[in-house]
Order: sequence, then structure tokens, then C-alpha cells
Amino acid sequence: MIAFQGELGAYSELAAFRFFDAEIETLPRPTFETIFDAVQTGDATHGFVPIENSVAGSIHRNYDYLLANELSIVGEYHLRVSHCLMVLPGVKLSEIKWVHSHPQALAQCRDRLRRMGLESVAGVDTAGSARLIRERGDRHAAALASKRAASVYDLNILIEGMEDNLANYTRFLVVAPDSLSAPADSGEEYKTSVVFHLHNQPGALFKALSVFALRDIDLTKIESRPIPGKPWEYMFYIDYIGHADEYASQRALDHLGELASFIRVLGSYPRHRITK
Amino acid sequence: MIAFQGELGAYSELAAFRFFDAEIETLPRPTFETIFDAVQTGDATHGFVPIENSVAGSIHRNYDYLLANELSIVGEYHLRVSHCLMVLPGVKLSEIKWVHSHPQALAQCRDRLRRMGLESVAGVDTAGSARLIRERGDRHAAALASKRAASVYDLNILIEGMEDNLANYTRFLVVAPDSLSAPADSGEEYKTSVVFHLHNQPGALFKALSVFALRDIDLTKIESRPIPGKPWEYMFYIDYIGHADEYASQRALDHLGELASFIRVLGSYPRHRITK
Repeated sequence: MIAFQGELGAYSELAAFRFFDAEIETLPRPTFETIFDAVQTGDATHGFVPIENSVAGSIHRNYDYLLANELSIVGEYHLRVSHCLMVLPGVKLSEIKWVHSHPQALAQCRDRLRRMGLESVAGVDTAGSARLIRERGDRHAAALASKRAASVYDLNILIEGMEDNLANYTRFLVVAPDSLSAPADSGEEYKTSVVFHLHNQPGALFKALSVFALRDIDLTKIESRPIPGKPWEYMFYIDYIGHADEYASQRALDHLGELASFIRVLGSYPRHRITK
Repeated sequence: MIAFQGELGAYSELAAFRFFDAEIETLPRPTFETIFDAVQTGDATHGFVPIENSVAGSIHRNYDYLLANELSIVGEYHLRVSHCLMVLPGVKLSEIKWVHSHPQALAQCRDRLRRMGLESVAGVDTAGSARLIRERGDRHAAALASKRAASVYDLNILIEGMEDNLANYTRFLVVAPDSLSAPADSGEEYKTSVVFHLHNQPGALFKALSVFALRDIDLTKIESRPIPGKPWEYMFYIDYIGHADEYASQRALDHLGELASFIRVLGSYPRHRITK
């Protein structure tokens, strides 16, 4: 059972089906937080969490939830996102005034919507916005959602590929109890995610990055998140190539431990490359 | 004339009054983007732009606008943010079902609102949400906004300090045409903001940070933003202590130029420290 945020037809559900590549059962959850809850309580074996979009940036709350929960990252998946503009059957483009969708989807189509003179209305998710159009029978509103959502809610697609930038990918993390983590397998390329907090001193981040650079470990991502209650102090999130069990990786993490007041390995998982 | 985002009574306007500490005129703009437009066209001398909140994180779109415009950062200001829950006169806490506000304000009061069993409704800004309650005469809705907004729209404050974390600050940047930039004054402490893009090679960020660390230049902030059209490539935004005119700073930026495929100094400005 795989928990995801949103309703049936959401991009997250589509990505989960592709990642697991099998007959999985999915569990729609109303919020990101309740994905983590579902995995913690055992209602789901895995959670499927969007962490970053190549256009809009990181989904920062999910970094907070990763840290707050005792789960590991056991996989990643990159989904090519393509937003469709959908309406009730028979509605024409000229009748539309408002476009409902998730704020990230609206942000990804910002320029296009502005050129079309359409007003954005933020909703809870993309598929839910499609359902809203259907339920309200609103002939002046459209939704931005996946092709699949149009079919689930019996809407007509007026335009495919509404996104301003066609190289639009969302990176998902698969979270699960630690016992489901994969040990290093020499045949695969792994990524490891680490979060840490540094003592506040000049050059602290430089020294922290040096533990990887001095061992030729390649970083693929760095992200900072403010720490509530400590203005302008940050948690750093780093992804690097390699499994935490590997020797160079172990030495780097030991070294990082000398510099950090807090450190946690969030998981090691097979790298998923974008296939174009 | 100082352009800010939101309506009269917005936190940004309050912060602008405190920063300029004088009889300024303010120009309310509907979006962040139109703040930059107003300064570009000369309708305003300065723009007042929120860039980061100590709880919710960075306001990422404003990094994009900084880069897209030929303006400089000429100042910064830290505002202590305190959200008030406000309703129509006579309405009791038990009657409220929904709370309207800007998504950042809702995020900052997330735990408190959940404990109170109140549903969040995202609006365009905090002061605008206060105005909405007044205009609609809605007795089942409240707004989260500044004390000043309650007085502007004649609402009653039921609870002050709704935010989950009381150490809640927003950092604002003051943007203006480059001609208004301050030259280095040895009596003041300055900060400089730089944006750059690195050639994608192992250890690239480590080397970039080394140009500052090797000269004992203290970084106060690092942020990454995806580059549209280039999945998983990033622009890095760095703030450091010092004025771009200073010798060590000039040398560091020259050195950074060797490593970066793009570099732009966004401005040097007097540092504003939080007074507790």
C-alpha cells in the first residue's frame, strides 16, 4: 500500500505506479503530513513524496516532515510533468475566466496563463481542482491537471502542455521504515541524503563541503531550511553520489560529525536518472 | 515613493515605514513582480520586497525577479512578525470555521490553527484577507493579519500572537536603481549579495565557497534556485559580510569569476541586525 498526497488521478499517484512498475494499491491522503503518518502507523508500506520541481523549486515542508519522522528514503523517481487545461464538455476557451489548480502547477504555467488573461485560483491539488469543476458544473472555470484526471472526472482537454517550460520534472522520494532500506549493491549507482546543522562560525559550510570534496564525492544538491525559533540558523540538506555503507562515504560522514552539532543520514537509495 | 506588495495595512508597508524612519509615501502593488516594474519605470524610487521568513523559509519568486531586473539591493530590514486573529465585531471564537490569510501567514500559524480545528483558506495577502471579511460580512470567517489591518478594516482582534513560533522575523530587501547604491563607509558593517552559476563538475560549489573561506569572508546565507529549462542545474545566491568595493571582496569575486559561467553582484548595503 503506497500513500500519496492528493486524489485519484494526482501526478503523485501516476509517479507511484511508474516507480513500482507493478500492481500496487494506492492510498490517497489529504496532506503531505498524513503521508508520513500513514507510513509511521503501518497503514501504508511506503510514502510517495514530491520534494522538488525543476521549475518551481523545492517543496520545503517535506524537508521538515522528513526530519520530524523516523523514516528512511528508500528510492527516488523523476516524473515528467505535463499540465492539461480541462473544462466541462462543450465549454469553449473564450468562456473561461478562472483556472483552478495546485499553486505549484499554477506557478509552472504562470506566463502562459497571464498571456491568456486567465486568473489563477489556488486549490488543494490538481486532481481535486478537476473534480471541483465537475461537481460545481462551473462553465467559467478550468482546471490544470494530469491527462488521467480529465478522464477520471470526465472533462475535455482544451490544451495539453500548458507549462511555461517543457523541461518540467518533479522529483519524488519514496519513504519507508528503515527496515526496507536497500544495502549497497555494487551493480547500482546510489545516492545518499544527509541533513546536518553546523556550529555557527565563519567558513562552517565550506568546511562541511570539504569532507565530500576531499574524498571526490560528488554532491548533486544542497538546500538550506531555517530552524524554527533560531532566526537565520539553518539545517542543510545534501544529496551525494554513493551509498552510506561505502568506505569513502563512511569516512566523510565521520568527518562531518566533527563539524556538525547534529547530523542524520536520511537514506541511501538507487539513483534514478532522467530519460529524455 | 516606496512600492510594496499588498494593500494598506500589509506587513510590508509597516516594515517600509520603520526602515525609512520618515514621512514616506507608499505605493501598494498587487504582486511582487509589479514592485519591480514600478521601480524600473520610475513610478517608485524604491521597492520593499520580502525575501525570507525565519520560519517558512525563502520567498523564492523574489530571487527570480531580482535576477530578471536591472536593480540593486540597497538595504535590508528584519521585521518581527506577529499575526492577529480578527473577526467582525461581535463574532465569537466558537462561530469561526475558516481562516483567511496569505499562505505564508497560514503556514506560520499551522499548528495553532490545527489545534483550534480551523480550516485555512489561502488568499492573496494578509491585509486583503482582513478586507474580505469586512466586505463579505462573513461571520464564520476570520483573518490573520497585522494589528494595523484590524484598525484599517474595523475588525476585532480575538487573539494576538497566533504564530507557532514567536521568533518570527521576515527579512526585507530594499531594491532601487543602481545609482542609489551606497558606497562603502568604513563606519558601517555591510552585506553583499551575489548570484552565480557554476560549471557542472564535482566539487564546484566547494571551490566557489573556498574563494570566500580562504579570505576569511563570512557567509550569512546560501540559497539555490533551479534554472528553468535545465533540470537539476542551479543558480546559487550568497550573502556575505563586507562591501563589494573592499579589497578582499574584490579579490574573492574575481576568483569566483574563474569558476562561474555567470556571476552578478546584486548589491552592497548596510547590515541590519535584529534587536531583541
